[in-house]
Amino acid sequence: MTTTRDDALALDAADPLAPLREQFVLPDGVIYLDGNSLGVLPRATPGRVREVVEAEWGQGLIRSWNDAGWITLPQRVGDKIGRLVGARPGELVVADSTSVNLFKVLSAALALASEGEPQRLDVVSERSNFPTDLYIAEALLRERGGRLVLVDAPEAILPRLDGHCAVLLLTHVNYRTGRMHDLAALTRAAHEAGALVVWDLAHSAGAVPVDLHAANADFAVGCGYKYLNGGPGAPAFVWVHPRHADRFRQPLAGWMGHASPFEFEPGYRPASGIARYLVGTPPLLSLAALDCGVDTVLAAEPLGGIAALRAKSLALTQLFIGHVEALCPQLELASPRDDAARGSQACFAHPSMAYPVVQALIARGVIGDFRAPDILRFGFTPLYTRFVDAWDAAAHLHAVLAGGEWRRPEFNRRQAVT
Amino acid sequence: MTTTRDDALALDAADPLAPLREQFVLPDGVIYLDGNSLGVLPRATPGRVREVVEAEWGQGLIRSWNDAGWITLPQRVGDKIGRLVGARPGELVVADSTSVNLFKVLSAALALASEGEPQRLDVVSERSNFPTDLYIAEALLRERGGRLVLVDAPEAILPRLDGHCAVLLLTHVNYRTGRMHDLAALTRAAHEAGALVVWDLAHSAGAVPVDLHAANADFAVGCGYKYLNGGPGAPAFVWVHPRHADRFRQPLAGWMGHASPFEFEPGYRPASGIARYLVGTPPLLSLAALDCGVDTVLAAEPLGGIAALRAKSLALTQLFIGHVEALCPQLELASPRDDAARGSQACFAHPSMAYPVVQALIARGVIGDFRAPDILRFGFTPLYTRFVDAWDAAAHLHAVLAGGEWRRPEFNRRQAVT
Repeated sequence: MTTTRDDALALDAADPLAPLREQFVLPDGVIYLDGNSLGVLPRATPGRVREVVEAEWGQGLIRSWNDAGWITLPQRVGDKIGRLVGARPGELVVADSTSVNLFKVLSAALALASEGEPQRLDVVSERSNFPTDLYIAEALLRERGGRLVLVDAPEAILPRLDGHCAVLLLTHVNYRTGRMHDLAALTRAAHEAGALVVWDLAHSAGAVPVDLHAANADFAVGCGYKYLNGGPGAPAFVWVHPRHADRFRQPLAGWMGHASPFEFEPGYRPASGIARYLVGTPPLLSLAALDCGVDTVLAAEPLGGIAALRAKSLALTQLFIGHVEALCPQLELASPRDDAARGSQACFAHPSMAYPVVQALIARGVIGDFRAPDILRFGFTPLYTRFVDAWDAAAHLHAVLAGGEWRRPEFNRRQAVT
Repeated sequence: MTTTRDDALALDAADPLAPLREQFVLPDGVIYLDGNSLGVLPRATPGRVREVVEAEWGQGLIRSWNDAGWITLPQRVGDKIGRLVGARPGELVVADSTSVNLFKVLSAALALASEGEPQRLDVVSERSNFPTDLYIAEALLRERGGRLVLVDAPEAILPRLDGHCAVLLLTHVNYRTGRMHDLAALTRAAHEAGALVVWDLAHSAGAVPVDLHAANADFAVGCGYKYLNGGPGAPAFVWVHPRHADRFRQPLAGWMGHASPFEFEPGYRPASGIARYLVGTPPLLSLAALDCGVDTVLAAEPLGGIAALRAKSLALTQLFIGHVEALCPQLELASPRDDAARGSQACFAHPSMAYPVVQALIARGVIGDFRAPDILRFGFTPLYTRFVDAWDAAAHLHAVLAGGEWRRPEFNRRQAVT
């Protein structure tokens, strides 16, 4: 039990992952608990981006598509991410945004699940899923004719996997509460019910163990700018199990997904495998930064990899939850107390003051975020978050609440991005 | 008539746009005639990208969405591009790739054109259109049930605008030949036939005059990494006339296009206007670089803007075409001789040796590109291309042909990207 700040410091001193923090630039005076919204800057990134801009673009110009290997970068970074989520080489690519990738894989899943069973038209998801997942599903179903069936609790999922369900669309770790699903068990249940599953790994990749092949998963998408530290708006990733990849032409049939993009044929011939999920020319500067970000996670491999990161992440959230609950009885834990059901974040709810409390914390340099309507969200990235950071963040939270600091007018004015 | 290299140097000395070249980093020993594939590096870009990476991301972290104005950057860069294509403020946004944007606007155009006229299902386009345009149309029509009607000559377009035509899908300046359509006349003809028009401005924006409002156009998309100098894979842009913008929910209903993205509502409410054409989080590093690139074109405004750039571009292609035709009779001009029908490039065809000749030129530092099956393509960007560059490029081309240099084996091996 961590009962003093010195205990937290001792945990850091004994932490075999502690050196990984040296990979990052962290602003002075900041405790950053928002790596699940935007990961921090890796030290390697500015130099690599400068090289891409000044040497590869500035000097190499168009030749760099071949000479600097730009044309294969979506696959090469994809293979690295694949190591973090249990995908095999050649199965996962970096492309577009999570939303756009969701559109591709949900299109595929709806089509494949209804083959021979035309009554399978519905998508089952959670009302608390990240909204873009629901919006994309809503838009697709408006065209395809199925229903979007939303449940309010995880236990309500299984009963809805009936003969009309084509696709179970879930985010592995909930963006608001950090509640984590059993990916393998739900995939199995969906398959037994005749449905396919689309997993959104936005809050999982680089943070918690995921083994897509072991789970026999169907489709997955994920985000590059959270735990993968790829930078603001880094491109996203998409994975399709090889048993599905060649069976469907995803509708965003752009030239980069063509079997021979530089033959400039008037008719579309999709590339085989995951390459057909590429669409347009990738944003190279952002993609090169993502490459550096993914490397910071792979750097944990000699130290135990994702399993070791996961163990530290749980220890961090346990410490934080315990300390906040001891200090701030007015807050209610919104994340699962059960380790197995909690991702790499710890959230608390308050019906009225969540927003200003988060703003007051940010003013103190403790950066978490508010998620409407009532959540204070704190992400713990074991690559760079220390035990003493978790301890100090809880102490700041107590100070903001105890001193009434959150009542100040400047903390109660909403900004464009919350 | 330019008859000597000194004449070309005299044209440069008298060129009021010549100082604009100082905005760019150009490699030593290179004559770059490929700005229509990847524009060159603006001098301002490395510093601006470094600021975004090191200060805004590295120090500002998540706060930069508000504090550095990241959240409004797609609109702010969009408004700048709007000035180059006759769009009004608030009508054009930067988002995704050209292919993805084509999917959005073609979805909208197909839906709106068939309102009350359900037999209007077809898309008319050119077989020589950039392939991704045709692939996206093919994929959409596979779902919607219409036909993709492809014509082989511009004169064949009008007869196909019949009662079944929903959308005329054209690229303003052809990527292979540089042939330029009369945007206003074809828009008028399509409207008279009851169809809507989608214009791809990939080879137009920043290079030739475009006035979307004067032409009463419907939809437009375009590319950020060609004449806008936004860097490899820079995000693309999308414009929808305000009379159409609120009448359709484009199917890529991502959270950034929601009326209130940070309310995290489970149901989709599209933003009004062009903002609903945003989808996911934009790739900020690439978007910031695009901002710098667009500024290099806007820098011409005090010197006469696009009209002055267009006049210089025509003079450059005239000089190049005249010199090549005088020196290289074995090549056939593939671009229109008529100024009004020629974009900012000059292309020649040869049935067998186009590919190795282009490679031999690149080895000499004259960078154009090959476009399958038989085109040598040379783009002229008046912001940084000099008259003497056009003169020297023609002389190199003659030397490659006359000396048989193109026969060398290393120039006959195909690379991944051509």
